[in-house]
Amino acid sequence: MSAATNAGQVNINSDLGESFGPWVMGNDAEVLKIVKSANVACGFHASDPVVMMDTVKLCVQNGVSIGAHPGFADLQGFGRRVINLTVKELEANIAYQLGALQAIAALHGAKVTHIKPHGMMGNMSAESAEMSEAIARAAKAVDRDLIFLCQANTEQGKAARKHGLRAAEEVFADRTYTDTGHLTPRKEPNSMIKDAAQAVAHVRRMVDEQAIYSTSGKRIPCQVDSICVHGDGPTAIPVSTAVREGLEAAGIRIVTLPELPSLRH
Amino acid sequence: MSAATNAGQVNINSDLGESFGPWVMGNDAEVLKIVKSANVACGFHASDPVVMMDTVKLCVQNGVSIGAHPGFADLQGFGRRVINLTVKELEANIAYQLGALQAIAALHGAKVTHIKPHGMMGNMSAESAEMSEAIARAAKAVDRDLIFLCQANTEQGKAARKHGLRAAEEVFADRTYTDTGHLTPRKEPNSMIKDAAQAVAHVRRMVDEQAIYSTSGKRIPCQVDSICVHGDGPTAIPVSTAVREGLEAAGIRIVTLPELPSLRH
Amino acid sequence: MSAATNAGQVNINSDLGESFGPWVMGNDAEVLKIVKSANVACGFHASDPVVMMDTVKLCVQNGVSIGAHPGFADLQGFGRRVINLTVKELEANIAYQLGALQAIAALHGAKVTHIKPHGMMGNMSAESAEMSEAIARAAKAVDRDLIFLCQANTEQGKAARKHGLRAAEEVFADRTYTDTGHLTPRKEPNSMIKDAAQAVAHVRRMVDEQAIYSTSGKRIPCQVDSICVHGDGPTAIPVSTAVREGLEAAGIRIVTLPELPSLRH
Amino acid sequence: MSAATNAGQVNINSDLGESFGPWVMGNDAEVLKIVKSANVACGFHASDPVVMMDTVKLCVQNGVSIGAHPGFADLQGFGRRVINLTVKELEANIAYQLGALQAIAALHGAKVTHIKPHGMMGNMSAESAEMSEAIARAAKAVDRDLIFLCQANTEQGKAARKHGLRAAEEVFADRTYTDTGHLTPRKEPNSMIKDAAQAVAHVRRMVDEQAIYSTSGKRIPCQVDSICVHGDGPTAIPVSTAVREGLEAAGIRIVTLPELPSLRH
Repeated sequence: MSAATNAGQVNINSDLGESFGPWVMGNDAEVLKIVKSANVACGFHASDPVVMMDTVKLCVQNGVSIGAHPGFADLQGFGRRVINLTVKELEANIAYQLGALQAIAALHGAKVTHIKPHGMMGNMSAESAEMSEAIARAAKAVDRDLIFLCQANTEQGKAARKHGLRAAEEVFADRTYTDTGHLTPRKEPNSMIKDAAQAVAHVRRMVDEQAIYSTSGKRIPCQVDSICVHGDGPTAIPVSTAVREGLEAAGIRIVTLPELPSLRH
Repeated sequence: MSAATNAGQVNINSDLGESFGPWVMGNDAEVLKIVKSANVACGFHASDPVVMMDTVKLCVQNGVSIGAHPGFADLQGFGRRVINLTVKELEANIAYQLGALQAIAALHGAKVTHIKPHGMMGNMSAESAEMSEAIARAAKAVDRDLIFLCQANTEQGKAARKHGLRAAEEVFADRTYTDTGHLTPRKEPNSMIKDAAQAVAHVRRMVDEQAIYSTSGKRIPCQVDSICVHGDGPTAIPVSTAVREGLEAAGIRIVTLPELPSLRH
Repeated sequence: MSAATNAGQVNINSDLGESFGPWVMGNDAEVLKIVKSANVACGFHASDPVVMMDTVKLCVQNGVSIGAHPGFADLQGFGRRVINLTVKELEANIAYQLGALQAIAALHGAKVTHIKPHGMMGNMSAESAEMSEAIARAAKAVDRDLIFLCQANTEQGKAARKHGLRAAEEVFADRTYTDTGHLTPRKEPNSMIKDAAQAVAHVRRMVDEQAIYSTSGKRIPCQVDSICVHGDGPTAIPVSTAVREGLEAAGIRIVTLPELPSLRH
Repeated sequence: MSAATNAGQVNINSDLGESFGPWVMGNDAEVLKIVKSANVACGFHASDPVVMMDTVKLCVQNGVSIGAHPGFADLQGFGRRVINLTVKELEANIAYQLGALQAIAALHGAKVTHIKPHGMMGNMSAESAEMSEAIARAAKAVDRDLIFLCQANTEQGKAARKHGLRAAEEVFADRTYTDTGHLTPRKEPNSMIKDAAQAVAHVRRMVDEQAIYSTSGKRIPCQVDSICVHGDGPTAIPVSTAVREGLEAAGIRIVTLPELPSLRH
């Protein structure tokens, strides 16, 4: 999974299908024109069986690969609140949501090809080997061909590799990094990148050099398989569109996760 | 799927895994000694990911085949209240619950081999070709090898066969039938069979003759692949145990659904 | 409660506070400039304790009187699906939601002064004396001073009066009526009034004549205490604003429900 | 609120109404013969509107005073998992649950006279002035006459008094204490008292001396207004019954919380 193997190619992913019942969230139709892989909510922090079915259909129509985006069972808190689960509870929660999406995908003849934990489940597991291993173990038991889409340079990638799952490492188009390689906390003034040109330069440098650069200029080498973009907020769609266009203008092909050379069997 | 092909063999099934969070329901450990197939609740009318995981484990340990038991999303009403879903909503609800259990089963290296709709979803679909076809279509899209465990002589079996799914037909050990072949409504005084000897005779006759007998004595031919027993209520375990022992004493082998000759590919 | 007593005054009401967790619904800030009474969702079909608290605060700031808007416990279906409850279940569901909002209102020193059942609970009770009486009975047990905001000429008003609750009768600004005085079903092409001028004329005539006019021109006398407007959909805010301005231009004062002469003790 | 004022009288309380939909929990009928105040679950960690209505009715029939027992919104975890809420969220959650029970109580002409936070909300608030004050503030806004039933010598009592609410302090009949006056953690071998005679002696000493004694024998003075007993587990009912009988045999009257001299206005 060396950087070289992806030369000239990268994935773009985003969270999708976050509506619930009568409540609409996000701009899925717009985002699907930009990304090549979607992290689809599975009904625990957002979505429901019908929203999942509609989302899978849109992914298929747009040639976007489908990933499960499991979260904590907390609709009201949108999966962003800390909930402490035992390893067994976490494994059961991961398998349940993953399987639910696999079956919904089957209704449209589609397949779930990756998994990425949502919100606080994502953040907590990024720093916890135990949680990341539980996620990897459950995912592998369900489908050994799944790709674990990981926050770059975290426990997630280590756990995926330890358990024999393929790991894709992602960086964020609209977020900055600290010297430790972590995302700058949202409460900091410079945590977000809202300027399209700045986001393009930020992403181009990460893809070209296969490294994160912190706000202080520190270079942190990492594998850059995928760029995570967002569809909510006033600047999200313009920034995301610019990132995609900027990469393509530089001759970089945007591909689905399973098409990435670094992730081929 | 003629009666002859099952000569000397029948399945016994029951609903299992109906606990939820801290609330325990049923006598699963006792029931698992009696049945050979379990209909496992999938989190919509009862159960949760951890209860499902524990239930699958118990099934595996007892050599009991696993079925999905999807219901309406109504924990408070235990899936026994009418909820009108569109065909699309029903398909999505079926696939979601089925897939969730498949993945939970995979955590224990097990496989879901049948599906049986729960409670009001079961009763409504028994009389609705549209609902039964939606269930059959969704189940087949997820796994074409699934067995549809049907209330005998209802729309369920017709829909299963129409869509190319194998149908197993069940009769009840502790319920009586009307002249139309339907279950005697629970409010009628003679709807339940609480006497073990009477239940044994009732089941023996249905299996031997491959027919239902109504309370008035009318004979309604049907395929009898499986006997449904219950684990709740003061008489359930003794009645169910007697039924199993009565069948075995008559030289009839109790097998899992996939082992039934009538359901072999 | 004769029409004369309200001469020159009418209430305008709308459903509010229908967001849930991270999901926003409606234009509450805009609607609060138009209405004088709000039907506040209570967490069963929409909303949650924090959304309720924010909504109450906005009502207080805008001098809008607060009503409980209880619905069936069905977030995914937004309380628009049929759920059959026993009388006891309905009474318990009404009291629970009403009390919850009363206590949330108390956090802002406010008071709940009316109740109006939501969605399918509203539609079913409009045609059911039993349901309307259960709602009236539960409401009265909780607060005998509550006003029951009723769909005009339905079982709701009869039940309110029978149980000694004050009844306010509402008509819709943007919906047409059939010859039986019921709302034209939404699937009919002429069910909605999307033209502002037409809505103003429609409402003016109902208020002036204290009568509903059906699409065929039939006159159905009724008490018109309140006009129900909506905040969702592209035409809702312009139509609602025009209705308020049209009434005021005709010298009619828009007041809260408790200020209506017909409802004074 | 000095110990002297309660001379010869004490309250016994227990958690009740913890069933949910079809799932039964506890032995409420037995417990109601022992206690004089009930902490009634409000639908967030257990119970539902119908269970609450049935529980209130039983309390009224048994002359048992009714308290709200609000918890975190987590049925699956029974309110025993940490959920971090903001002060505003906690206030809204408290008011919502308290108001819901008040209204359900009104259906039976009854009144909620105290509040006691459940499970992890209880444990976290016992050590957090901020949480205890949020609970006290919300409770007082809803009903300034409510009694805050507090774990003895914790932040709860301080917050209640600071906000002008009456505080009742409770000790546990079947749990031991550490030298800091906290409950011995459940994982310790001597955390529970399962012997009836030992429980009686333990409670008698706490009531007589208005003090907790730790397992090492340390005396920690406290106000003992109420004894908390449990109804679940094989030893709970015998132990609780013995405690009540032991107190009565010593001439101590068991009264409801509002009857306690220390809590009279």
